[in-house]
Amino acid sequence: MLVKGKKYHSIWMVRPEGGEDWDAEIFYIDQRTLPFEFKVGRLDTYMDCFEAIRGMGVRGAPLIGVTAAFGIYLACKECYMDNGQFNFVENAFEKLKESRPTAINLYYCLERVIASVRKERTLKSALYVALDCARKIWKEELRKSLSIGENGLPLIRDLWLGKQKKTINILTHCNAGWLACVDYGTATAPVYLAQKEGIDLHVWVDETRPRNQGARLTCFELLNQKINHTLITDNTGGFLMQKGLVDMVIVGSDRTTLDGNVVNKIGTYLKALAAHDNNIPFYVALPASSFDLKADGDYDSIVIEERDQKEVKYVEGLLCKDKKSEKGSVLITNLETNCLNVGFDITPARYVTAYITDRGVFKPGELRKTFGSENE
Amino acid sequence: MLVKGKKYHSIWMVRPEGGEDWDAEIFYIDQRTLPFEFKVGRLDTYMDCFEAIRGMGVRGAPLIGVTAAFGIYLACKECYMDNGQFNFVENAFEKLKESRPTAINLYYCLERVIASVRKERTLKSALYVALDCARKIWKEELRKSLSIGENGLPLIRDLWLGKQKKTINILTHCNAGWLACVDYGTATAPVYLAQKEGIDLHVWVDETRPRNQGARLTCFELLNQKINHTLITDNTGGFLMQKGLVDMVIVGSDRTTLDGNVVNKIGTYLKALAAHDNNIPFYVALPASSFDLKADGDYDSIVIEERDQKEVKYVEGLLCKDKKSEKGSVLITNLETNCLNVGFDITPARYVTAYITDRGVFKPGELRKTFGSENE
Repeated sequence: MLVKGKKYHSIWMVRPEGGEDWDAEIFYIDQRTLPFEFKVGRLDTYMDCFEAIRGMGVRGAPLIGVTAAFGIYLACKECYMDNGQFNFVENAFEKLKESRPTAINLYYCLERVIASVRKERTLKSALYVALDCARKIWKEELRKSLSIGENGLPLIRDLWLGKQKKTINILTHCNAGWLACVDYGTATAPVYLAQKEGIDLHVWVDETRPRNQGARLTCFELLNQKINHTLITDNTGGFLMQKGLVDMVIVGSDRTTLDGNVVNKIGTYLKALAAHDNNIPFYVALPASSFDLKADGDYDSIVIEERDQKEVKYVEGLLCKDKKSEKGSVLITNLETNCLNVGFDITPARYVTAYITDRGVFKPGELRKTFGSENE
Repeated sequence: MLVKGKKYHSIWMVRPEGGEDWDAEIFYIDQRTLPFEFKVGRLDTYMDCFEAIRGMGVRGAPLIGVTAAFGIYLACKECYMDNGQFNFVENAFEKLKESRPTAINLYYCLERVIASVRKERTLKSALYVALDCARKIWKEELRKSLSIGENGLPLIRDLWLGKQKKTINILTHCNAGWLACVDYGTATAPVYLAQKEGIDLHVWVDETRPRNQGARLTCFELLNQKINHTLITDNTGGFLMQKGLVDMVIVGSDRTTLDGNVVNKIGTYLKALAAHDNNIPFYVALPASSFDLKADGDYDSIVIEERDQKEVKYVEGLLCKDKKSEKGSVLITNLETNCLNVGFDITPARYVTAYITDRGVFKPGELRKTFGSENE
């Protein structure tokens, strides 16, 4: 999508002029400084990937997966250049698995690349295969986001037509935008396609404390894409729904069980409850790769990430003082106060209207028969 | 309650040594700089009261009412000292009514003082009566908070005993503490009395964006009172309830209809939904003076305050840099992004377990017969 009118992906590969077939450089948009500073970073080693994922330079379930896939490629490259042992790549695989605990895509992508690599006899052929596989995953993610958009578009169009083409108000939480994917996004993909079709749209963006991905990333995306939007606190969505100012909710997911229970950014559950209470459709947009085929009904087994309490205690942003502006943070409570920082919550399937996937739109009861058998 | 070990009220009166009978000075804790700086302000004119209420130097429905009552007294004093016309006091009454739109206590207190003042023939006797009436309201608010505490205490005690005296986890939103009242608070009053009784307590404090009254004021109160507490983002309460980590919710109210619909700080409704979904008791603590006797079932008539979007766009706090710290704020989104700042939402009665009032604990259906007739 666009940044200041120029087309970007969240992560991309550059083949150096006259370089080897197996050589590629990996660049990404560093999401830590957005929207205040647009910074492109380069991933040279698998540890760069680990740090970018762990430190949330890249985030969002699909993008985490793609970045980790490139991580295995980079581990192969490091190993090949240093004449190392294949064990180095296996270690990278183990390390990358630990970068973030909740997004399921991470494991799927890592396992896919490592499986293809393990079949190879030489480091060089492993390197080719890793690059090929990571690139394939990148392309697939892009195509999946587009498919999610195409599958979700009719839902928006129907609401719009039913409303006599009056502005459709869509509420979203966190950032399930193109920055969380390779392009288009998950929750935002139908929105971007609806805009293209000329549907009159307005997006309510939850700021999404503690890290404010809504305020920082979703607003940045929508502003650059020239889509009408309004930033609200996480407390506000329920009131807007009571007042009839929300036509639909679309969120992403870090992991969804085949029973339809949705692990997503903390606070999603509260919006699902409010949507249910006000008869507003609540959609979860996700690629099939975000379904957790193993988790059973008892979703207590899913690891919910707990992050540093500093993210609650301090709010980061742009400090404007004496006409200068620089990144800074403010303490919002007593220095002595203890905080808890939970990253995700689980929205029970009964509050989800439907799942907008790259393979179609499904109701909660349809997930297991559609995604369960073939993947086993 | 305590601030650094010293007893305080949120607002208080001082009679100057050797001064006239009608002379009193009004002091208050300025809540704009808490918890970073403890500042006491003086209210010398009714416009000081207006500004303190409007600018949220004082806030919380009961305290707003008390401050406005003192405002009428100060208007009488100004008028008497300047040999002015009584019309000045009537203008003060009109002005003070406009200071904040949502809390119903404001109107009740103002009407009570102005009614008593209007009966007087001279400015001097009006001045006596205004002081007497405002002081009475102050005392009553204090007593009401204590009664709310006494009436709510058994609810906490029963839960505690039912849990074999294991720690009771109470979630609260915004600040319905002693800083919002004269002393004890509304939602916090039962908590403070439970602490006195030796009940093992822990409070989850919603930060309560945009103004962070939870992070800034409730945490300040609990820290000074040595009550275990943890600050969480407004997104987190639902997850904690799902995980069985919340035993009860207690919030305050700016206005409650006799049908039991609760106007309170934005985001309250979302917590009520989550409590309902997880079978957790949800209590609203309020003095009888926060019941709106006029509002009918159609609560669309209640004015919901919309505040400056800057409160959403910027987060205030303590800026810590180069070992110096000073009050500051950070921009959390694009400078161009539009924000909406709604102050309150309405929690439907069906999600309220009971109302803890100074007159007893009541279920939604019992409000009209208890509070309706006698006040008409």
